[in-house]
Amino acid sequence: MTENMKVLVLNGPNLNLLGSREPAIYGSQTLADIEQQLQQHAADHNAQVRCQQSNHEGELVSMIQQAAQDNIDAIIINPGAYAHTSVAIRDALLAVALPFYEVHLSNPHAREPFRHHSYLADIARGVISGCGALGYHLALTAALTHCRAASQ
Amino acid sequence: MTENMKVLVLNGPNLNLLGSREPAIYGSQTLADIEQQLQQHAADHNAQVRCQQSNHEGELVSMIQQAAQDNIDAIIINPGAYAHTSVAIRDALLAVALPFYEVHLSNPHAREPFRHHSYLADIARGVISGCGALGYHLALTAALTHCRAASQ
Amino acid sequence: MTENMKVLVLNGPNLNLLGSREPAIYGSQTLADIEQQLQQHAADHNAQVRCQQSNHEGELVSMIQQAAQDNIDAIIINPGAYAHTSVAIRDALLAVALPFYEVHLSNPHAREPFRHHSYLADIARGVISGCGALGYHLALTAALTHCRAASQ
Amino acid sequence: MTENMKVLVLNGPNLNLLGSREPAIYGSQTLADIEQQLQQHAADHNAQVRCQQSNHEGELVSMIQQAAQDNIDAIIINPGAYAHTSVAIRDALLAVALPFYEVHLSNPHAREPFRHHSYLADIARGVISGCGALGYHLALTAALTHCRAASQ
Amino acid sequence: MTENMKVLVLNGPNLNLLGSREPAIYGSQTLADIEQQLQQHAADHNAQVRCQQSNHEGELVSMIQQAAQDNIDAIIINPGAYAHTSVAIRDALLAVALPFYEVHLSNPHAREPFRHHSYLADIARGVISGCGALGYHLALTAALTHCRAASQ
Amino acid sequence: MTENMKVLVLNGPNLNLLGSREPAIYGSQTLADIEQQLQQHAADHNAQVRCQQSNHEGELVSMIQQAAQDNIDAIIINPGAYAHTSVAIRDALLAVALPFYEVHLSNPHAREPFRHHSYLADIARGVISGCGALGYHLALTAALTHCRAASQ
Amino acid sequence: MTENMKVLVLNGPNLNLLGSREPAIYGSQTLADIEQQLQQHAADHNAQVRCQQSNHEGELVSMIQQAAQDNIDAIIINPGAYAHTSVAIRDALLAVALPFYEVHLSNPHAREPFRHHSYLADIARGVISGCGALGYHLALTAALTHCRAASQ
Amino acid sequence: MTENMKVLVLNGPNLNLLGSREPAIYGSQTLADIEQQLQQHAADHNAQVRCQQSNHEGELVSMIQQAAQDNIDAIIINPGAYAHTSVAIRDALLAVALPFYEVHLSNPHAREPFRHHSYLADIARGVISGCGALGYHLALTAALTHCRAASQ
Amino acid sequence: MTENMKVLVLNGPNLNLLGSREPAIYGSQTLADIEQQLQQHAADHNAQVRCQQSNHEGELVSMIQQAAQDNIDAIIINPGAYAHTSVAIRDALLAVALPFYEVHLSNPHAREPFRHHSYLADIARGVISGCGALGYHLALTAALTHCRAASQ
Amino acid sequence: MTENMKVLVLNGPNLNLLGSREPAIYGSQTLADIEQQLQQHAADHNAQVRCQQSNHEGELVSMIQQAAQDNIDAIIINPGAYAHTSVAIRDALLAVALPFYEVHLSNPHAREPFRHHSYLADIARGVISGCGALGYHLALTAALTHCRAASQ
Amino acid sequence: MTENMKVLVLNGPNLNLLGSREPAIYGSQTLADIEQQLQQHAADHNAQVRCQQSNHEGELVSMIQQAAQDNIDAIIINPGAYAHTSVAIRDALLAVALPFYEVHLSNPHAREPFRHHSYLADIARGVISGCGALGYHLALTAALTHCRAASQ
Amino acid sequence: MTENMKVLVLNGPNLNLLGSREPAIYGSQTLADIEQQLQQHAADHNAQVRCQQSNHEGELVSMIQQAAQDNIDAIIINPGAYAHTSVAIRDALLAVALPFYEVHLSNPHAREPFRHHSYLADIARGVISGCGALGYHLALTAALTHCRAASQ
Repeated sequence: MTENMKVLVLNGPNLNLLGSREPAIYGSQTLADIEQQLQQHAADHNAQVRCQQSNHEGELVSMIQQAAQDNIDAIIINPGAYAHTSVAIRDALLAVALPFYEVHLSNPHAREPFRHHSYLADIARGVISGCGALGYHLALTAALTHCRAASQ
Repeated sequence: MTENMKVLVLNGPNLNLLGSREPAIYGSQTLADIEQQLQQHAADHNAQVRCQQSNHEGELVSMIQQAAQDNIDAIIINPGAYAHTSVAIRDALLAVALPFYEVHLSNPHAREPFRHHSYLADIARGVISGCGALGYHLALTAALTHCRAASQ
Repeated sequence: MTENMKVLVLNGPNLNLLGSREPAIYGSQTLADIEQQLQQHAADHNAQVRCQQSNHEGELVSMIQQAAQDNIDAIIINPGAYAHTSVAIRDALLAVALPFYEVHLSNPHAREPFRHHSYLADIARGVISGCGALGYHLALTAALTHCRAASQ
Repeated sequence: MTENMKVLVLNGPNLNLLGSREPAIYGSQTLADIEQQLQQHAADHNAQVRCQQSNHEGELVSMIQQAAQDNIDAIIINPGAYAHTSVAIRDALLAVALPFYEVHLSNPHAREPFRHHSYLADIARGVISGCGALGYHLALTAALTHCRAASQ
Repeated sequence: MTENMKVLVLNGPNLNLLGSREPAIYGSQTLADIEQQLQQHAADHNAQVRCQQSNHEGELVSMIQQAAQDNIDAIIINPGAYAHTSVAIRDALLAVALPFYEVHLSNPHAREPFRHHSYLADIARGVISGCGALGYHLALTAALTHCRAASQ
Repeated sequence: MTENMKVLVLNGPNLNLLGSREPAIYGSQTLADIEQQLQQHAADHNAQVRCQQSNHEGELVSMIQQAAQDNIDAIIINPGAYAHTSVAIRDALLAVALPFYEVHLSNPHAREPFRHHSYLADIARGVISGCGALGYHLALTAALTHCRAASQ
Repeated sequence: MTENMKVLVLNGPNLNLLGSREPAIYGSQTLADIEQQLQQHAADHNAQVRCQQSNHEGELVSMIQQAAQDNIDAIIINPGAYAHTSVAIRDALLAVALPFYEVHLSNPHAREPFRHHSYLADIARGVISGCGALGYHLALTAALTHCRAASQ
Repeated sequence: MTENMKVLVLNGPNLNLLGSREPAIYGSQTLADIEQQLQQHAADHNAQVRCQQSNHEGELVSMIQQAAQDNIDAIIINPGAYAHTSVAIRDALLAVALPFYEVHLSNPHAREPFRHHSYLADIARGVISGCGALGYHLALTAALTHCRAASQ
Repeated sequence: MTENMKVLVLNGPNLNLLGSREPAIYGSQTLADIEQQLQQHAADHNAQVRCQQSNHEGELVSMIQQAAQDNIDAIIINPGAYAHTSVAIRDALLAVALPFYEVHLSNPHAREPFRHHSYLADIARGVISGCGALGYHLALTAALTHCRAASQ
Repeated sequence: MTENMKVLVLNGPNLNLLGSREPAIYGSQTLADIEQQLQQHAADHNAQVRCQQSNHEGELVSMIQQAAQDNIDAIIINPGAYAHTSVAIRDALLAVALPFYEVHLSNPHAREPFRHHSYLADIARGVISGCGALGYHLALTAALTHCRAASQ
Repeated sequence: MTENMKVLVLNGPNLNLLGSREPAIYGSQTLADIEQQLQQHAADHNAQVRCQQSNHEGELVSMIQQAAQDNIDAIIINPGAYAHTSVAIRDALLAVALPFYEVHLSNPHAREPFRHHSYLADIARGVISGCGALGYHLALTAALTHCRAASQ
Repeated sequence: MTENMKVLVLNGPNLNLLGSREPAIYGSQTLADIEQQLQQHAADHNAQVRCQQSNHEGELVSMIQQAAQDNIDAIIINPGAYAHTSVAIRDALLAVALPFYEVHLSNPHAREPFRHHSYLADIARGVISGCGALGYHLALTAALTHCRAASQ
């Protein structure tokens, strides 16, 4: 693993609405704002971030598969609702065998019972929830730290 | 809310088969027949209906998001199988915060146990099931009545 | 089945309080108001409506039995709390074998978990919930439409 | 049913990775290899095989619908993760009413509990699991045998 | 306990419809027919039978309470639907502490799951189900035999 | 709320048997004895008590509805078996929105599992169980204390 | 079916101990006593009874299979513990498709929870429990009555 | 048991915060205030009250053990959170075999589901919940009344 | 592993009835017919098949134990009802550690819920169900293929 | 009870394989070795041991019944898999009413969930698991100690 | 591991009451008596026993941690009520990674359902229950035997 | 909230073993190392950190209560095993109403099922798990960021 680490930041369904959707809960930053900050944060650490979003389960599966072919080092994924319903995304993550971090803007445990279970959490390298947009930043810090440690 | 109300009628997976699929259960009207009647019924009440169908969960999410951008006043949704498995569609409906009516042609409670639960029912404005194609008509009546009452 | 269809509109426990009980939720119309409108609606379509209400599970059972003896064509029932606890009413409806429509003013799925199950829903011809007093009207439309179709 | 039987072989999400993904578990044959062998096996028995794969639930639904329009005689489906989460695919299979065989390369019962349930198994003509790539071959044998018997 | 035993035969909701309700399942004998035969059978053994039926849970409770005051020796009860929902009837039977036999015409275990549990079965002296109208006769035989044995 | 508070003491099924039914468990006081003492205790505090009992779920519903019309200030209810099975009584109490106290003579948690759940407990102002006839006295003390505090 | 009906009375594990095992619960009659009385009762009605007992699940399966080959008309089975654990005996009874009556000496519902479920009850013609040795007699009466009615 | 009864009033974790913690829910009285009133109430009836509080499960166990050695006659315990998690306190109460009353200031049934179960309730002499600080007073009344009755 | 592979084909309870038992479901071939075809199929591939059947759980355990002593290479087992109830057969298969294939003639997932679980499936090499008698043939193909691959 | 105590050591299915089956888990001692050591240990304490093993549930039932007839004083039983599935063996042990000790070589709680429940454990005098072959020795020590204490 | 083995005997809450608490169940030996006998038994085998008891979960955690620092060879723990509620003690035992034996004086499976699960059992080296004070002795025998075998 | 923020870092049972306990899983840093780094990190941002650890549930409750009295601004808590069993700690956190972050070194969702539920998670401001010692650092970053934002 070289200095020039690459991280995929993947956002699932309805996260394209960030900033416009219930700002009291999810904050007023748009997804573009957040992605720009992550790009900057990565650049500050000689790393690269690829940002992708989709409302389609199948596209998210394909994006994860592509990440492995493009030598991505780690994935940060906010699976949105698919955390609770998608075994296909789990299988894609198992197949590519990349370390990944699951991020949730709000705290799923404070919401409906069906949000308390995630099909990804038990195979994630780390899980960060309830920290708002800052959660992506923390996950990126963790990904860079752990991957650098693993590559030494 | 002006007189010129707009209602989105959204149909989920396999409903494009209406008329050909098990007509004894689902009736012999095609989806196009039903949509045409709803268009007429809406026009009779100075309202408009936009009709969309998709087999893709992600497309249904995007159609709901688009509805909010296009100032749709209410949604009538027959989510088909996704009623029982899609949190993503639930989240889209929560995000756009439009009143919506869930319609099922047959009675889900008379079928397999996994059809007894809907991820949409508890946030729906109304639920109508078992009334066949007439159910769309009843839902449109309810949507027009309630929205007009709310706009006064 | 002649033109002169007869429909029984049956209301269960506490629905005699309509209009006075939590009007923000249940509306300000009394049960008498609603029944009068249904009578008118039926008369407009050459049909008759018999309206009955009881707080007693046993009386509701007897009213359903009587309906079969009086050649009622269809039943519209808002079972109130008995939807969730009464097998006896289910058995009466099974015994008389009349098509019936279950109506709930509010949306049971948005309330306590024990209201999510109805002992009647799986044997109902149709279920309409969350549409307020309009729900009776929609159910009557469905009953008249379906019964006329069946009698042709 | 003529001699010239047509069978659809449908593969779900992540099965496009076969050969590269965990070969110790799934074997080193690619999906293309397997499909070629099935084509040959079918040709040896005067039958045809159409092979399709998708990561998208909605596309799989559409492929099944198309199969009915193209007079496919039977379906062999490895639904991958969608076996455990997709009612939409179940509904498509119910709608087209074609005999189908569910195949799993590994043994789902030896894996996580949520893989022990399949939304397709109870309506499948046959289920074959744990036999690796050979499973497709066995399913094709079964499909040809049963369909020929049914057509006599 | 004297020779002149008295047995209460109590029937719950909808059993007044016997003979007219689904005769293929429940037989063509009316409740009056059955009661007359039980009267005769009792008389043949120097015993008396009191027959009562009600659709009201509360009335059944009161009838059981009255039985204790009138020195009834045993109760044969077909609780109908209340077997599955009434703790009040259970409490009445516990309070009067009379031996009782629970009879079901059809076999509840062959019907819906909620009919598999009875609030009375575990405190009954005996349970007889699935034997049709003959079940009352068998229960009466058991009641007379056991009570005579106990009184000796 | 004036000094002249009015409290409804409502007893459910089988509680008319008090004194005669299992005195080792329920004590030897009759319901009339208990009611007389409560009348006296209330009079000592310038309050009135109305005492009612019924074995009928529907009558208990009606008595609660009537309480609201008669300006009753609080309800003390021993629902007996209906605590475990009646949503209708719960709905009546929700509808009249009066503070109420649930009393059980014995300790339901020491009995059968189905007695561990009460449909009333979560909406009760207070719950007192296991204290025998004294429980009514304690509940009346609580009702008078709380209502006087609320009216100041 | 001729006048000369044949009934198999089958007893499962530990029922060979009858008379010696907990006589307070199971009575002091031995299995031989009971079988002799059943023989006599059958003879009085021009019928025959074959009595068999085994502690082995497999032998009970074989005895049921043999019954079909020997033109037995009905089976009375006290499966003992196998009621709660044996699908094999259920399958044997399904295979031979003879009407059968399940008898339990004591009341399983008054015992441990795992005795509340029987793998046979839902496919039995009738179930009689809690009536002691008299239960066999009642079951024989039912078998002779029903079979005679069916053969006419 | 002499006139000079002794009652232990035991408070569990976080109850030392009474008066400062969410006064809208728990009232503005401090634990010291409540204990002083109980002391006075006891003195008025020739009884003594010992008041103890601990956040430690183990200390509460030891305090209960000590109560038996010091000839305490009854215990009033507000176990706070340990009601839902402590078998050790249950065992201590079983071991000392003193009558005890469980008090909860608020109504646990109106809160999170895990508060609906108490490890103490089924072995308590009485349970009083939802009555605020008055609950201790009522429990003390019950303890003095029952113990005096038992000692006569 | 030599060319001369040996496979044990083991059939459980009631499978001796094949051909006579519900031929519409299970086919008209007898077990002897099926076994003869398997013998032939094996001989065609230089392999041997030993066929055994028993209604006794214990005998099936012993037959499996014997297989290991006789150097059987693989087992094909149709456990019948014991699939759902026998841990002893599971333990025998675990003990001998031979690869085995579980075969079911019909589709257990389309039958009663208790047939959806098999105590053998998670440790089987492969599972084939719903393919009728052909299932044995497919399993034998799989066994010969896999064992030959493993022995190379 | 005389000095000459007799203990039955009963081993269930697959325990005849001890020594050959997974020695890393179960040890290298054969069942014969263990039985010989128990004989010696018993002889050292003026006691006798009868050792029996069977793979058949029914035979184990019969062996337990025979033990009571032969005046066995206590039973040590390693039920193997039948611990988890056999109510018949439970019933035999209940019927003979002899004190018995349940032994498991390995720790069932560290294995599959279905091994965590034993149908025998709650009626056993003692349960010893995870101690390997030494467990029999410890159970014999306990049996001799307790029986001697009871006989004094 | 030298000849001079050291074993920690740890007793949890309420076990300090042994001898005084329900002697009919737990015996009349005090904990001091038992500890003295274990000391003697250990000394006879050139081993040492350290005996500790606490009612505090946290102290038990600390005692286990200390055991590892003091080179204890094995632990015998009667966790009392904490067996059913303490993950902290489980974690301490996991952390120190010493072989340990769980002892219960009475048989938890014969008591309340919540006593059927132990947070320690699946990681214990052995479990002994129901053997009274003798259980400690048997566990010490097992610990000495196994540790000596492991050290050779 | 001034610049001089104060954060309590609270560690629960067995976390005092960090560095020595399973370093492959938990890392080789001791708790002292981690605390020192957090002190430094806080100082760099003009903040203070108070570090406390306890194996006692009650002490952790008291430490949380004390935090409120000492004007702590936020809490970072690694509750260890008490996450899964302590309602008392939950109640303390509810009572002091301070924002808190729950940290787990490893990923609880990848471990035993009872570790999948936390009594704290739904009321936490944020949850970070699986990130090792870095998790405390991330939580501190989140606490400082959020509290500064809230104080502006």
